[in-house]
Amino acid sequence: MDERLKQQLDFALEIDKEKNIFRQTHLSGHGRNENDAEHAWHMAIMAYLLQEYANEPVDIGRVMLMCLIHDIVEIDAGDTYAYDTEGLKTQKAREDAAKERIFSLLPEDQKQKLTQLFDEFEEFQTPESKFAHAMDNLQPLLLNNSNGGGDWREHGVSAKQVYGRQQKTRQGSEKLYQVTDQILKEHIRKGNLKE
Amino acid sequence: MDERLKQQLDFALEIDKEKNIFRQTHLSGHGRNENDAEHAWHMAIMAYLLQEYANEPVDIGRVMLMCLIHDIVEIDAGDTYAYDTEGLKTQKAREDAAKERIFSLLPEDQKQKLTQLFDEFEEFQTPESKFAHAMDNLQPLLLNNSNGGGDWREHGVSAKQVYGRQQKTRQGSEKLYQVTDQILKEHIRKGNLKE
Ligand SMILES: [Ca+2]
Repeated sequence: MDERLKQQLDFALEIDKEKNIFRQTHLSGHGRNENDAEHAWHMAIMAYLLQEYANEPVDIGRVMLMCLIHDIVEIDAGDTYAYDTEGLKTQKAREDAAKERIFSLLPEDQKQKLTQLFDEFEEFQTPESKFAHAMDNLQPLLLNNSNGGGDWREHGVSAKQVYGRQQKTRQGSEKLYQVTDQILKEHIRKGNLKE
Repeated sequence: MDERLKQQLDFALEIDKEKNIFRQTHLSGHGRNENDAEHAWHMAIMAYLLQEYANEPVDIGRVMLMCLIHDIVEIDAGDTYAYDTEGLKTQKAREDAAKERIFSLLPEDQKQKLTQLFDEFEEFQTPESKFAHAMDNLQPLLLNNSNGGGDWREHGVSAKQVYGRQQKTRQGSEKLYQVTDQILKEHIRKGNLKE
């Protein structure tokens, strides 16, 4: 096997580990915790189906790939819960080291491409990255909503915290932000989210 | 919320169930069984990275989406192991009913699009579907290879059976078939695959 293909297959095998990185979100039907690979799969399909609601036109193939790879760094860095203030402080350093190690398994040209795409997601400037972030927020919201807001109750998350995070959704999709807002108001009313 | 968006979100929530459909393949590191959503995520990224090896040029966005949705019908129909002769006889009828029920949750235009894409995968005629099938074969092969061929040993699978299935890989990618062939020969030599 030539060296290029060997590097690509080594990377493919390495990212299998993302299936062992579990998140705070639970699957619908009061299921188990979700892992990063499932979350990314779900986001990519949702991005395709909901692309008509992006605030600006997006290259949907680019959005989908961004969704698929955006959590690969968590193989080393672990999942940082969106409302974990301490964890968030060290997240960037942990994820930068992981990005360098993991993407370096690839041939140089593909390392550059995936690193760029990962950085684009993080930098939150392009229409594609904004819409991908909307999916990153909406996907767990859908699951948590279907489970009666259990993930928020478990962590004592406040409405203010959730609304802070959901501002990114608004920049990706005003329409999906409206739905988010409706869902959040209902959970505040029911006491699943602290005011 | 308008009806169209409601249908899209209902579908998005429904496909969450794919994360509960477990396959015969085990994760690398002698891990647990893999589920369909993880498998699809892995295939889509591999398709992107390995697209240069497709026998014919492919629309990679289409291949990736095909990979992501190709197992959604298994939410109702269950996973049919590639070497389960009895299960394979009823697979098509079970999957057709599932396809109708699940894709009908979507707005009509999106139901048509996803049904077409699913059928294209199954019909195995286009360059995209052939390359997606190569991923459907190569992804579990990589995992099983990393685990010393345990999935084959567990089910007493023969080399003839595996080579039969891998002919689809060859039609999608001669280059990846060569790698497959090398891997299989090694497992035959070691006795992990019955001759
Ligand atoms: Ca299947």
